Amino acid sequence: MSTSGWHAAWLPDEALAPLGRRVTAVDLTVVSASGAGPVVAAVVAEVRAATERSGGRLVLADDDVTAADGDVRPDLVLVLDPDAGLPAEGYAVERADGATRVTASDDRGLLYGFFHVVRLGEGAFDDALAAGTHAPAHAVRMLDHWDNVDVHDVMGQVERGYAGGSLFYADGRLRPDLRRVGAYARLLAASGVNRVAVNNVNVHRTEAHLLTDRLGDVVRLAEQFRPWGIRVHLAVSFAAPMTLGGLDTCDPFDPAVADWWADTARRVYAAIPDFGGFVVKADSEGQPGPFAYGRTHADGANVLARALAPFGGTVHWRAFVYDHHQDWRDRKTDRARAAYDHFTPLDGKFDENVVVQVKFGPLDFQVREPVSPVLAAMPRTHLALELQVTQEYTGHQKHVYYLPEQWSEILGWEPWADGRTVSDVARDVVAVSNVGDDRFWTGHPLAQANLYGFGRLAWDPALSPSDLLDEWVGLTFPGADARVRDVLRDVVLGSRATYEQYTAPLGVCFMVGPGHYGPGVDFYEYSPWGTYHFADRDGIGVDRTRASGTGYSGQYPEPWASTYESLETCPDELLLFFHHVPYTHVLHSGKTVVQHVYDTHTDGAARTVEMARRWEDVDGLVEPALYERVGELLAEQVRSAGEWRDQVRTYFWRHSGVPDARGGPLY
Amino acid sequence: MSTSGWHAAWLPDEALAPLGRRVTAVDLTVVSASGAGPVVAAVVAEVRAATERSGGRLVLADDDVTAADGDVRPDLVLVLDPDAGLPAEGYAVERADGATRVTASDDRGLLYGFFHVVRLGEGAFDDALAAGTHAPAHAVRMLDHWDNVDVHDVMGQVERGYAGGSLFYADGRLRPDLRRVGAYARLLAASGVNRVAVNNVNVHRTEAHLLTDRLGDVVRLAEQFRPWGIRVHLAVSFAAPMTLGGLDTCDPFDPAVADWWADTARRVYAAIPDFGGFVVKADSEGQPGPFAYGRTHADGANVLARALAPFGGTVHWRAFVYDHHQDWRDRKTDRARAAYDHFTPLDGKFDENVVVQVKFGPLDFQVREPVSPVLAAMPRTHLALELQVTQEYTGHQKHVYYLPEQWSEILGWEPWADGRTVSDVARDVVAVSNVGDDRFWTGHPLAQANLYGFGRLAWDPALSPSDLLDEWVGLTFPGADARVRDVLRDVVLGSRATYEQYTAPLGVCFMVGPGHYGPGVDFYEYSPWGTYHFADRDGIGVDRTRASGTGYSGQYPEPWASTYESLETCPDELLLFFHHVPYTHVLHSGKTVVQHVYDTHTDGAARTVEMARRWEDVDGLVEPALYERVGELLAEQVRSAGEWRDQVRTYFWRHSGVPDARGGPLY
Repeated sequence: MSTSGWHAAWLPDEALAPLGRRVTAVDLTVVSASGAGPVVAAVVAEVRAATERSGGRLVLADDDVTAADGDVRPDLVLVLDPDAGLPAEGYAVERADGATRVTASDDRGLLYGFFHVVRLGEGAFDDALAAGTHAPAHAVRMLDHWDNVDVHDVMGQVERGYAGGSLFYADGRLRPDLRRVGAYARLLAASGVNRVAVNNVNVHRTEAHLLTDRLGDVVRLAEQFRPWGIRVHLAVSFAAPMTLGGLDTCDPFDPAVADWWADTARRVYAAIPDFGGFVVKADSEGQPGPFAYGRTHADGANVLARALAPFGGTVHWRAFVYDHHQDWRDRKTDRARAAYDHFTPLDGKFDENVVVQVKFGPLDFQVREPVSPVLAAMPRTHLALELQVTQEYTGHQKHVYYLPEQWSEILGWEPWADGRTVSDVARDVVAVSNVGDDRFWTGHPLAQANLYGFGRLAWDPALSPSDLLDEWVGLTFPGADARVRDVLRDVVLGSRATYEQYTAPLGVCFMVGPGHYGPGVDFYEYSPWGTYHFADRDGIGVDRTRASGTGYSGQYPEPWASTYESLETCPDELLLFFHHVPYTHVLHSGKTVVQHVYDTHTDGAARTVEMARRWEDVDGLVEPALYERVGELLAEQVRSAGEWRDQVRTYFWRHSGVPDARGGPLY
Repeated sequence: MSTSGWHAAWLPDEALAPLGRRVTAVDLTVVSASGAGPVVAAVVAEVRAATERSGGRLVLADDDVTAADGDVRPDLVLVLDPDAGLPAEGYAVERADGATRVTASDDRGLLYGFFHVVRLGEGAFDDALAAGTHAPAHAVRMLDHWDNVDVHDVMGQVERGYAGGSLFYADGRLRPDLRRVGAYARLLAASGVNRVAVNNVNVHRTEAHLLTDRLGDVVRLAEQFRPWGIRVHLAVSFAAPMTLGGLDTCDPFDPAVADWWADTARRVYAAIPDFGGFVVKADSEGQPGPFAYGRTHADGANVLARALAPFGGTVHWRAFVYDHHQDWRDRKTDRARAAYDHFTPLDGKFDENVVVQVKFGPLDFQVREPVSPVLAAMPRTHLALELQVTQEYTGHQKHVYYLPEQWSEILGWEPWADGRTVSDVARDVVAVSNVGDDRFWTGHPLAQANLYGFGRLAWDPALSPSDLLDEWVGLTFPGADARVRDVLRDVVLGSRATYEQYTAPLGVCFMVGPGHYGPGVDFYEYSPWGTYHFADRDGIGVDRTRASGTGYSGQYPEPWASTYESLETCPDELLLFFHHVPYTHVLHSGKTVVQHVYDTHTDGAARTVEMARRWEDVDGLVEPALYERVGELLAEQVRSAGEWRDQVRTYFWRHSGVPDARGGPLY
């Protein structure tokens, strides 16, 4: 625990002790320490604090102190050398002559190199340390905060937030004390995140003003993030020229509108020179957009992009556009098709500094969806993959759901099955944050592993979820009993599969109740949201084939277009996403659909009982408050999983009339 | 329209013109006008105002003006004579020598006699007027307002209110200007209501204080109601001795608790001598109650009753008690049984001034439930029948639903099939109000007919809904074209049956969505609320028989216990309330259950289209604002009925697999 009132997460003092016990030289001979800027200053301050705590020593080698003391051999040398030829944000590590040397060509490279050493712990000083160069796979690794300044009537302070209030805002304004935001930025830097959007993409009245007369709030937030190499972005309303600017239009083709955006961007950059750019949800779920003027998304995005371009800013334009007043009677309209249908005709029409931000699946952050075909269909457009760290449909941070297990699959999915992955085609990786003002940051203490894992996977998608978990455990519980690691592995690994087992089966999606928590098998069945499963007494699932359904399967390149189209080849876990089948359809696994549902729900719920029991084994081995919080939440997970199990099983039983071959209870 | 900013409802000036054009003598020779009190003063003021408007004359014959002028022959004589021997609140009417004479033995009798004359219009002065004595069938005719002082997070200002804000409260306090409350009291008096509870039975923090330090608000409300013969009641929290009194218990057996209630009642009566009493929802849906102390509802009610008894006050103790954390898996627990199981063992144990207030059906104000068996099972207890004027489950005052058609059935139902009716066994009749600060009082202008009809039926349950509608139309649209009456008859009469046709079929109940508006066939199916229909691929309905179900049918006396028990004799409209049957079960009507569902939903929704079309025929014949409001709401009713039709039909189709013999669309 930190003494500061919030949990230290993956940067407790002990995690920095291996470095802090040693002598670290920071070599800034090329860029002087005084002129190197706030990021370098943060690194130096980190080393200084760690060595002061643990008895090591900081040696600063810059133009003021031209060389390290002759009588002190540093164990670690951190070198910032713009001429070293290393990639942006990257760093090289080598071990020689009893010293570890980290070299970077820019300040953020030095920062990430420093945290690399922290992650390695004692291993950083092992002569067996492998030499190598590290650089991020994705230049933009961004967290979107769906935080409101005002508490929203329905959505609260943080939309889809499950960790208390906002870290940034309280009582209708920016928090006066932002120290915790600084601590948050430090944690993010250690995970590799380098962008943060500081407000909800549904931009309400008060929040719209962050762009203009409340810009001072964004300035203050940027001050907290800047030392940690993080640029701030702002979600803006497409209607801002009207609501804020007093114009009578926000038509992107109107010169006054373009001028307003250009002038506004100029003012923003005057206050925040490293401002990242705008995030926009337009013509989606009631937000304003270019459709009102007969303009395209490209027209809309480009007017903002041109305002930002002179300053190096980016527009993240969300592709989450669909008809949310759909008629459930209409089986031809398919929400899953919407992003592709709206955006792929515009490929090549977006300006260079526009990024089309695509949710990982065609629906909405479900536990199991196919990867969005948009990612494979816009080669002439910069794309961002949008993930969700916050557990909207995945258990509201009450259920253990280890998201890297899902993200790893997504990032590594090959749209053409030829080696090229989603990670290769998505320039940026973005996720909705799971952080709030909860003492443990993320509500569920184990959900910290998701936040940490996001930054790490965005940096290096090849990291295995299992290794990432060990890394997180090593940092978060330094020096803990080996049993802690073993229990955490047992509880966390496989938790995504467990959740999938007891919730909506076989890719059918959206069997959630109000607020997207807990079972509601039919809750969305007759809704206007375009999310149906069409269960009847004979079968279930959505026919999205070209042959007889909505044709969505045809949005994929080969081989997936054919793989998904055919009942013979469609993967079991996506069967009901692509096909409407009888309950007695036999899966590749050899089980019928209905027996699969019975078994997985029984087994998944049983697994949560084991998880809760296993957690008891760390009683006394971790801090009591964390032990209790996780225990309480596991009890809720057990209860909720039992409810999911019984409702889904019973629903299938009542519809199919097929008994459970294993004889479990059906109601 | 009134000139006062709100609609005149059933008391436009023109409705009083037949009286106002004539000479009316008010004879108070026995009780002097000056000493007769505010009710008599209100009657005199009404006559004075009406005659001043319409050119008639008021002659006051009391001890100051000992006789009417010799040269003026009154057309109407209103006599208050305590020695006339007429029943409380009653009046006698006779026509002789060209004058109509109304005699009452108490001031409220005079008030009701006056409004009787208003209702009759020109007919009151017809020599063919039948002589007769009129008295209310029910001594207490009460409206419960579920109004909050503060706006509740979930329930708003008026819980289950569909007519805007509260008439009484705004901005967290009593409205400073209560003139509209006075106008409301006058309308209620004309309908026959004589009690009003002024706050929500779910007593929240602020509202609890109406009993003590906010009592002044109740005093001011009582001042508005008093001239119209209406006593105010207050909903109180059973925990008040703790939350308001600072005691550490509210155990009814604790002398300090009894003392607190006695002292509190004394203070209330010191401020409001005609205070009616307390309304209590205890141990129900989270409200506190005597169960916490191992005491019974009788114990709880009696401690309050004893505090009120010295002052003539009454406790209305609600029988709406059930387990709202029920397990949907448990088919043996039956919410329908709860009120009977909780209360009938206590018959005879309630004090004389306790009234057990029983919802008309065992569930919750559904469009079709059997009448509550509690009403037939507590002969030694005063009972109130609780109805709902506000359209919680019956269309939120967006749908035309003429409630007198339902109430008339309920009041006339014979628990023993021997001539004794519900009206005979329920001493009081109570209903939840449908009024708010909407200009038309009730949101839907036609819902005024429900409010009016409630008071009239509580006075005389034998009135036919059809005659009542004509009466309401005659008052509300005086002098209107005969087409107005014809259209209103076409739109309003039968509207209860229409609503039943397109919503939950055959007594199955609770197929509503969130907020109790619109279809949600499965919305309550897996909930903790005890409201299930158990539909599967074979059939639907709740087995409440003694033979194989929950045994609820056995709570009825004969012949109903047997009638409901048997599939052969159970009325079609309650079939699914009492029995789980296959979709192909053949009704007494000769149709299968599923075809009945198909047909009624098609026909019911089609009927709303006719209603909307018919309404267009009064364009230009009623005030434009009223015409438009009703038209807009009918359009919503048509839309909503279509949604009900399609969802319910499709649900039955998907479960049964039986096609619609009439070939209508199924999805």
